[in-house]
Amino acid sequence: MEESTTTMTTGKPIKCRGAVCRGPGQRLRMEEVMVASPGAFQVRLKIVCSSLCHSDVTFWRMETFPALFPMIFGHEAFGVVESVGEGVEEVSPGDLVVPSFLGNCGDCTECRSERTNLCAIGFNPMGGLPRSAPTPFATAEDGAAIHNFLGVSSFAEYTVVDVSQVTLVDPAIPPEKACLLSCGVSTGVGAAWKVAAVEQGSSVAVFGLGAVGLGVVEGARLRGASTIIGIDLNPEKLDIGKKLGLTDFINPKDIGDRPLSEVIVEMTDGGVDYCFECIGLASLVSEAFASSRKGWGKTIILGVEMRGEPFSISSAEIMQGKTVTGSVFGGIKAKRDIPILVKQYLDKELRLDEFITHELGFQDINKAFDLLVQGKSIRCIVWMDR
Amino acid sequence: MEESTTTMTTGKPIKCRGAVCRGPGQRLRMEEVMVASPGAFQVRLKIVCSSLCHSDVTFWRMETFPALFPMIFGHEAFGVVESVGEGVEEVSPGDLVVPSFLGNCGDCTECRSERTNLCAIGFNPMGGLPRSAPTPFATAEDGAAIHNFLGVSSFAEYTVVDVSQVTLVDPAIPPEKACLLSCGVSTGVGAAWKVAAVEQGSSVAVFGLGAVGLGVVEGARLRGASTIIGIDLNPEKLDIGKKLGLTDFINPKDIGDRPLSEVIVEMTDGGVDYCFECIGLASLVSEAFASSRKGWGKTIILGVEMRGEPFSISSAEIMQGKTVTGSVFGGIKAKRDIPILVKQYLDKELRLDEFITHELGFQDINKAFDLLVQGKSIRCIVWMDR
Repeated sequence: MEESTTTMTTGKPIKCRGAVCRGPGQRLRMEEVMVASPGAFQVRLKIVCSSLCHSDVTFWRMETFPALFPMIFGHEAFGVVESVGEGVEEVSPGDLVVPSFLGNCGDCTECRSERTNLCAIGFNPMGGLPRSAPTPFATAEDGAAIHNFLGVSSFAEYTVVDVSQVTLVDPAIPPEKACLLSCGVSTGVGAAWKVAAVEQGSSVAVFGLGAVGLGVVEGARLRGASTIIGIDLNPEKLDIGKKLGLTDFINPKDIGDRPLSEVIVEMTDGGVDYCFECIGLASLVSEAFASSRKGWGKTIILGVEMRGEPFSISSAEIMQGKTVTGSVFGGIKAKRDIPILVKQYLDKELRLDEFITHELGFQDINKAFDLLVQGKSIRCIVWMDR
Repeated sequence: MEESTTTMTTGKPIKCRGAVCRGPGQRLRMEEVMVASPGAFQVRLKIVCSSLCHSDVTFWRMETFPALFPMIFGHEAFGVVESVGEGVEEVSPGDLVVPSFLGNCGDCTECRSERTNLCAIGFNPMGGLPRSAPTPFATAEDGAAIHNFLGVSSFAEYTVVDVSQVTLVDPAIPPEKACLLSCGVSTGVGAAWKVAAVEQGSSVAVFGLGAVGLGVVEGARLRGASTIIGIDLNPEKLDIGKKLGLTDFINPKDIGDRPLSEVIVEMTDGGVDYCFECIGLASLVSEAFASSRKGWGKTIILGVEMRGEPFSISSAEIMQGKTVTGSVFGGIKAKRDIPILVKQYLDKELRLDEFITHELGFQDINKAFDLLVQGKSIRCIVWMDR
């Protein structure tokens, strides 16, 4: 029973298993870690399942700052509130929640604005929780502090999260489906819904069909787009793409020397209404921009340019009424929007099942990294109790 | 009487004075030119006055393609319909009109869409009228074809314009005020109104206080912006800017080595809601973008990058929910929007008088070029009958 566990552990650190990474690109090691008791504005979660997102892999490989080790990765998850810290009234032990790397405190100017989802509490990619004292959220067996990832660190049986970063969800949604709404899929669906506001009958091109790109495909389908073109080097993405509403597929390997934009402009008689860059390559942003329609074409940047390279935008083309915009988390305000997505799933409008390609037990978490790195998985669910 | 003139000239070429430019950067020469009779979809105008826009100067200086000589420049004007060609029903001889370089045919997909002002009939910067046969609109005394500028060529007593490029105006507006709505001022006001849709209480930065930039200032004031920051190297722009609603002024010469964006972000506690680049310098676009507010800052490109350089946009910053967009003619659809601006002027809402710094007779047209090149004029009205 969850309740009795709660009573026994409240106010004390919890010793549990965590998948600790001790250096860039190193295999995660199952260790006994002590997860701190939640401080003010904090919630301790018992993680039910996590899924591996490409951002975990990106930061796992990172060799220089902000890379910090030892680290517990993981930020797409579903969990049960185990205990809460001082001042937390929004959730109680036993509540089912989805954590998110981007908070939604509800009180700041940004949360109260309809124009942005960038909650002022903010987030650190690596390091401490946004409102925590220097105390680490977890320590290793030798007493060393373990660094936190994106304020979530869900690759452990328990974790501590800021209350602004948890969203209560309808218990009717299965944990592994709710888990997907924690980051990647919501980012893609949100980009089509909140950032682009794709209209009925419009045309869309999606560069990169990972979970974010496929989320865009699903979001565009839900919004009634009539042409949804996916672009990916991996031909296996076509099948899953079609299940989510892809109408056309371009493998850049199949078009010879022709620029992608030329092919897309020709296919759509002038370019698409909306282009989504879901990879994070400056060179692709220029191609996406060139693929968007003169007059009103919008290019939405979702991929994080990890080398920090700036984008180059044609000055002549932008004068033709084109737009480039970007967002974090697809414009999603977690506490407002995730419950809407949960309801859409339960109403059989939003498709989530198709994103889950693999499921593993916690001890096999390194295999989840292998599958994603090799391009074999879209989302691999890691169950903590298997 | 206009009517009698009309009757006498209809269907025949008109011999009149034109300010012909015979080579890049050369002084205009007053010549006798023959202005053709209007063909299908064309309207011949008797020009009442023109004003000199910076685009005239830019193309006048241009040494390579699309530069074509001999050329009659001029595209901001006010005129009287002298005669009309086959199929023209919208205007009749004697009607008072403002020509515009960008047409608004009303029939194409673009004209019927709310999303763009880029009429499909299009325009050529230099050369023929958009729907004309190869016949030149005017010939020189030696019979050589004179090239047309932006479909308008208003630095002549008569010119021929496509009917999609003329807008009927309320005769209550003085010619020299209506003339301003032909290009630059409408572009600026339109950018604040149609492209940015500046909201009440918002903050705005305008890079470059020429007629377009000052139009943005006026447009932002009309839309209720509470902070309007102008940036210009010429300190004399402060006075006229203040008359139009400028609340703050930055001369880049006065801030030492500090980047403009740093100063603007500090002044506005995080950046402005809207940034307008009205110069056409790729390096300034990056500064404008950096000056815009995280979460929802929009950068609107109005300046034409004449060297064709691409813009460089920070990938990290665009992910923070910022947007870059561009437009031609400030999103204005001439036949729909110019009459609204005329009414706003007549209702004493829109200010236009402040833009006129000089007035000259046609024979002194080269002086108008000097004044603009030297940064002494905002708009110099050139009257054809003085």
